[in-house]
Amino acid sequence: MSMHSFYENAPKHLVAVDCIIFGFEDGKLKLLIIKRKVDPMAGAWSLVGGFVQDEESTDEAAARVLKQTTGMENIYMDQLHTYGEVNRDTGSRVIAVTYYALIRIKEHDRLLANEHGAHWLSLHQIPELIFDHNLMLQEAMKRLREKVRFHPVGFELLPEKFTLPQLRNLYEEIYQRELDKRNFRKKILAMNILEKLEEKDKTSSKKGAHLYRFDKQKYELLMETGFGFTM
Amino acid sequence: MSMHSFYENAPKHLVAVDCIIFGFEDGKLKLLIIKRKVDPMAGAWSLVGGFVQDEESTDEAAARVLKQTTGMENIYMDQLHTYGEVNRDTGSRVIAVTYYALIRIKEHDRLLANEHGAHWLSLHQIPELIFDHNLMLQEAMKRLREKVRFHPVGFELLPEKFTLPQLRNLYEEIYQRELDKRNFRKKILAMNILEKLEEKDKTSSKKGAHLYRFDKQKYELLMETGFGFTM
Repeated sequence: MSMHSFYENAPKHLVAVDCIIFGFEDGKLKLLIIKRKVDPMAGAWSLVGGFVQDEESTDEAAARVLKQTTGMENIYMDQLHTYGEVNRDTGSRVIAVTYYALIRIKEHDRLLANEHGAHWLSLHQIPELIFDHNLMLQEAMKRLREKVRFHPVGFELLPEKFTLPQLRNLYEEIYQRELDKRNFRKKILAMNILEKLEEKDKTSSKKGAHLYRFDKQKYELLMETGFGFTM
Repeated sequence: MSMHSFYENAPKHLVAVDCIIFGFEDGKLKLLIIKRKVDPMAGAWSLVGGFVQDEESTDEAAARVLKQTTGMENIYMDQLHTYGEVNRDTGSRVIAVTYYALIRIKEHDRLLANEHGAHWLSLHQIPELIFDHNLMLQEAMKRLREKVRFHPVGFELLPEKFTLPQLRNLYEEIYQRELDKRNFRKKILAMNILEKLEEKDKTSSKKGAHLYRFDKQKYELLMETGFGFTM
């Protein structure tokens, strides 16, 4: 078969990226979603996404979408899964590659997001999304929970200095259940990735709560190795 | 924007699946690879793959490729990663989705594989593969090692009954290093997923080695939960 016919005879497909962008604010894990502007389903809620263009990689398409909606650049995005069902998009066949990012909401460009019709909604408030986007979100949450089981998490979501209750709150939001305070404290300190600061946060009590920050080197080492079983 | 122009104006792409098919035979972890038949790089070694057709999902395309090459059906394949770099295929832009499968080599159709120019090569003997296929293999091996760290492995690769040395051999092949016999035995038995049989395998010694099989229920439970850190 000639080179020509091998590639020329194969069918081509629309390929999109859909981004699951998590942030953490006011003690809530939030997701950035957008009101879709085109038919079918104009006006419905959707993940932030776009078509992969000729001159960009799928990773670059995801970074472009993130930048267009939040103004943020150089954010690490993890590719999650490719959804290739024939009829998943009711407008046309579209193969969708999902990416997820964890970002500090405070650092994004709120005006730009508003301009794009993008909103941060708490995970408890996520409405029905178009197509298979609720499934994409579910699977991203599952991946986030797996990540938390095997690796430390929080560096990308919390401010530089935080209290243990804030960190526990983040884990509770990811697990979507309450965690025992003493047990959490014991386990998280045993990870040996936190640095206790002299400063206290006095916004919630007069006595105040100690502020901590991540020891970046230890955090990254643990990120690399994980907590798993080794032979 | 009309529905028409939204979908019609977006560029379309060739999408392929590439399958990393692992098997275990004669104490070696092996990979199924094929001699490419078309230019560019006709005659070079390649993973087993094909273009996603209009009427099939990406998962179905991977299952079709596996069936065409090995005759095997209903094999669980895990999607791994989508490679979306613009110039990764030197013939044309192709976005490739990788899948991996663990199969029992004995159960595949050797004649069919031969007809397709497919060969099982030990991981130590893998030659240079086309495009980014060596990277795909590396990343699949990394995923397999991660899987082994957090989950039991072997059910899909070993015969129904096997000895502990055979199982250790499989782990050694995945880790690509020798494991301490006593330590392996202790750790693997502590997983509580093996059932010791009365029968012995006497092919390697007169005294023989006990045969084991996986307790499927316990294996699947551990597969579900993994060994990770839980709050």
